[in-house]
Amino acid sequence: MDIQKSVWVLKIGGNIIDNASALAQFLNDMSVSKQKIVLIHGGGKIATELSKKLGIETKMINGRRITDKETLDVVTMVYAGLINKNIVAQLQKLGKNAIGVCGADANLVLAHKRENTDIDYGYVGDVDVVNAKFLSQLLSESTLPVIAPISHDGKGNLLNTNADTMASETAKALAKEGWDVNLVFGFEKKGLLLDVNDDQSVIHQIRTSKVEELKNNGTIHSGMIPKIDNCVEAIKKGVSKVVIGHASEVKDILQGKQTGTQILS
Amino acid sequence: MDIQKSVWVLKIGGNIIDNASALAQFLNDMSVSKQKIVLIHGGGKIATELSKKLGIETKMINGRRITDKETLDVVTMVYAGLINKNIVAQLQKLGKNAIGVCGADANLVLAHKRENTDIDYGYVGDVDVVNAKFLSQLLSESTLPVIAPISHDGKGNLLNTNADTMASETAKALAKEGWDVNLVFGFEKKGLLLDVNDDQSVIHQIRTSKVEELKNNGTIHSGMIPKIDNCVEAIKKGVSKVVIGHASEVKDILQGKQTGTQILS
Repeated sequence: MDIQKSVWVLKIGGNIIDNASALAQFLNDMSVSKQKIVLIHGGGKIATELSKKLGIETKMINGRRITDKETLDVVTMVYAGLINKNIVAQLQKLGKNAIGVCGADANLVLAHKRENTDIDYGYVGDVDVVNAKFLSQLLSESTLPVIAPISHDGKGNLLNTNADTMASETAKALAKEGWDVNLVFGFEKKGLLLDVNDDQSVIHQIRTSKVEELKNNGTIHSGMIPKIDNCVEAIKKGVSKVVIGHASEVKDILQGKQTGTQILS
Repeated sequence: MDIQKSVWVLKIGGNIIDNASALAQFLNDMSVSKQKIVLIHGGGKIATELSKKLGIETKMINGRRITDKETLDVVTMVYAGLINKNIVAQLQKLGKNAIGVCGADANLVLAHKRENTDIDYGYVGDVDVVNAKFLSQLLSESTLPVIAPISHDGKGNLLNTNADTMASETAKALAKEGWDVNLVFGFEKKGLLLDVNDDQSVIHQIRTSKVEELKNNGTIHSGMIPKIDNCVEAIKKGVSKVVIGHASEVKDILQGKQTGTQILS
């Protein structure tokens, strides 16, 4: 029997993307690791700032961006262009053979437009299938995929897609493909906090069964809920390890050190 | 001996990129072909329009865009993001497994910043090496590479690069890698014209030795000079066939029909 191949799916968000020196440090920390990595990045504030400069109103409902056609063009430019290609260029400098893709490329993330909801989110996609075979092939060649949170519907439309969900779906698809998958959500705090006002109150380990309890008693709330739901879903679908931690600790996390919050089955 | 594998390197420019219906028709025509294709696109007017909206002055010298840092960000967004990903999504719809990349991705086009010239072009790259092995692998898997005219310098910088040159360098690198390469430059005219005022005066075939003569007597002038130089250079470096033709005739060209201007050795 083959030894199961291990891969780390890392998701970084605005707190890293929006801070050039934090991003450079993160990429540097990541590049010294010998682990196989898939990097998924969010968008940060750049798309909102560009929209503002272009006079396009940014509409958010429940923390989700309403994506009309003009906004879709902006996020496509910023996520799949500016952010994605600058990360790739920096990783190439650091000796990692990165390739930047969005969900349309090589049919990587097929999604459908979110419909039949109370709110019209516009060009927002919910993921149907991640092409894990394509990712497997890149990983087997020691290529490092850098994924922008834009999917496509197979009908010629690009769709704005939540980066946490892209990460979770990618991790699950790789697990199904036979990989031993570790999923790490970079977070602005050092992990899930028992007390949101106390940065030292990191919950080091939490079982999925306990998550519901913490949601019900309000410890996990608002923006954390979709994030933790993505974590639980990943564990349930065969991802070996899910960690929520600060991006500055990624070096430790990639070395298997116990840091941040680990979600257990 | 293996039968030499054939590939078509197609370059499209502003007259197609800037016209949604012409682009859709071109991609449709292209997608019915069974040929292996590498598509390279320019930028068209979108980058200039976006720069204008953002209050960034567009400076052109000798038909070349001066690329300061702000302009580099704009062309990265527009070329590698908006245009590239929309082409890929359309090709996916048409059943072609396209993957959109720029020169930083998988170290596809390594370049150096143009320096020691009278004019400071800014973040403009002259191509050093095209990673033809990576393209060969994509082509062997029936994946269709769609290349945006942004290269990188291996030091973390993206560089704006002329799309005609990207096409020519890509064609030459594939020829060196053992491919039988056909290079097609999509053009706003039906080919090279003997009389610029007469669209029917297409030169059907021209030898490279004749090109110098037509440059000297002014028949080939201004913006056509770098284009024809790219053609001649490609032929000299092992590309089998170079055609300058109208993008609306790509279906005929891909079927080997004699149309446009063919440059012969």
